[in-house]
Amino acid sequence: MKNTQVLLAARPEGMVEESNFDIREIDLPALAEGQVLIQTQYISLDPAMRGWMNAGTTYIPGVAIGAVMRAFAAGQVIESKHPNFVAGDYVSGLWGAQTTVISNGKGLTKINKGSESLSLHLGILGMPGMTAYFGLLERGKPQASETVFVSGAAGIVGSTVGQIARIKGCRVVGTAGSEAKCRYLVEECGFDAAINYKTEDVDAALSQHCPDGIHVFYDNVGGPLLDTGMLHLARGTRIVICGAISQYNQSSIYGPKNYMKIVTARGLLTGVIVFDFLDRYPEAVQQISAWLAEGSIKTKEHIFEGIERFPAVLQKLYTGENFGKLLLKTS
Amino acid sequence: MKNTQVLLAARPEGMVEESNFDIREIDLPALAEGQVLIQTQYISLDPAMRGWMNAGTTYIPGVAIGAVMRAFAAGQVIESKHPNFVAGDYVSGLWGAQTTVISNGKGLTKINKGSESLSLHLGILGMPGMTAYFGLLERGKPQASETVFVSGAAGIVGSTVGQIARIKGCRVVGTAGSEAKCRYLVEECGFDAAINYKTEDVDAALSQHCPDGIHVFYDNVGGPLLDTGMLHLARGTRIVICGAISQYNQSSIYGPKNYMKIVTARGLLTGVIVFDFLDRYPEAVQQISAWLAEGSIKTKEHIFEGIERFPAVLQKLYTGENFGKLLLKTS
Repeated sequence: MKNTQVLLAARPEGMVEESNFDIREIDLPALAEGQVLIQTQYISLDPAMRGWMNAGTTYIPGVAIGAVMRAFAAGQVIESKHPNFVAGDYVSGLWGAQTTVISNGKGLTKINKGSESLSLHLGILGMPGMTAYFGLLERGKPQASETVFVSGAAGIVGSTVGQIARIKGCRVVGTAGSEAKCRYLVEECGFDAAINYKTEDVDAALSQHCPDGIHVFYDNVGGPLLDTGMLHLARGTRIVICGAISQYNQSSIYGPKNYMKIVTARGLLTGVIVFDFLDRYPEAVQQISAWLAEGSIKTKEHIFEGIERFPAVLQKLYTGENFGKLLLKTS
Repeated sequence: MKNTQVLLAARPEGMVEESNFDIREIDLPALAEGQVLIQTQYISLDPAMRGWMNAGTTYIPGVAIGAVMRAFAAGQVIESKHPNFVAGDYVSGLWGAQTTVISNGKGLTKINKGSESLSLHLGILGMPGMTAYFGLLERGKPQASETVFVSGAAGIVGSTVGQIARIKGCRVVGTAGSEAKCRYLVEECGFDAAINYKTEDVDAALSQHCPDGIHVFYDNVGGPLLDTGMLHLARGTRIVICGAISQYNQSSIYGPKNYMKIVTARGLLTGVIVFDFLDRYPEAVQQISAWLAEGSIKTKEHIFEGIERFPAVLQKLYTGENFGKLLLKTS
């Protein structure tokens, strides 16, 4: 049995480069007692990867040089000597960018797959969907008729946040980086307004679209966009920091100069780490699945084929070239 | 009856200048029915003044050009045609930098003065003391044995915060800008450690003095000090933004680049606006008075005489030349 792996070859300085990765093929040993052999079907490309490529520990240690690049993946068990798994089981886990893996079962999630694509379990029914659900509802605590502003709204997290907020009766405004993405947000996802941050004056657009100010600011982007949003905080605002994709490839981070506006707004800034809600994932998967089934929530995928394209495809995440949840299919 | 007033003559750009103010003497009219005549005894010089000198509104509108400079003051009623006041009453209020004032009674606080100096009612028993008390206890919510870190700790707010935290059983660490101030914090105020931010490596000192991280970060200073503190957040940290005195005179504000550390620490950043606790001032005044009486809390004043020195003395607040609550005595 062969396994193709993406290894972290070097740490990036600034923008992630293809040369930061090596691809190699290895032979897998025979399965031992208590192990399970999984064939990867999808590898998830997520903004957090840029942080994982750094040295040191944040909420999770950096990937070691020479190690398989950390990645969420989903696939199917093809052989099992583990009591909890049988061949044919669908599973997901953080087993990294590789086409096959031998696991002792730890950290694997069994997927109760219906007719939906397995890939959704790396997107709206996976970690990004959970991040949107718990970050918005548990940290942002939106109330009906409040205004929710989402940066990076066309991404999988942002579009899910906006749609859940809409379902909860909020006014929803988001930013995205192209006209097509903005149209998608308004026409497909039911946002009240979408702002093209590349061509529009975001400050003026926020005055127009958030006349009562921002009650929940779900920030995926950081940088000047976070700063501009802070000029429009409603009293009692909650800023939920999910990520800072505009900053991950910068050598010098942009700090929000307008943070004192949080004080005058009697608001707060906090964040979401999805792993803190691990025991409540089933509740969220069930709820989001129900919304998907009834058509009240939509999701979009952007899938490339072939693990060898991992280094090139990952870059698209940070340049904004992806449109929908970015995935690699390993056929 | 004469009244000497400090007027805002021009808005500063960057550091406040003496030329931003005019001093003039006017004649006061006779007292009308419903009015009270107050002789100012003390004028308070507070960091917030720099913000009040700007155009526009934050939590309070900026002072108009040509208007009396906004200031907290305390004094004595010398004539009253108002049913709630009699000559001899001690009062405080936001009546501005002037030696005498005719008031309709609105916004005046009657002071139940004992043997203590009236000036304390502009300091530890006034707005700064209230800011310390409610900001720490209601926003920071310190628990016994947690570590509280206070920037600008030798100021009236900071030294009060640190002492209340000590009374509540916390480990207390603060920063100040001179050896004398640091000694004062440890020897007089009972801080566990004080860091001279001008001569010490604050990052290294925080590693040493806050080995369990910072549970409550009470920030009066902003700028790089806020950023460095964010490298030492304990899990569940509460950052309470009270002010940003290092930034008030800067034309370009320094935004905290390490704000994502709040996310990984599962913490939050919020602020305190003292006016939100107006109805609870009596409770705080009573508690702080009791602590003062039993000697478990101390305070220090830095008093200059003569209203004409207002422009020069105000600058000392931003250069850190004051040591203790900065006041003008108008004799």
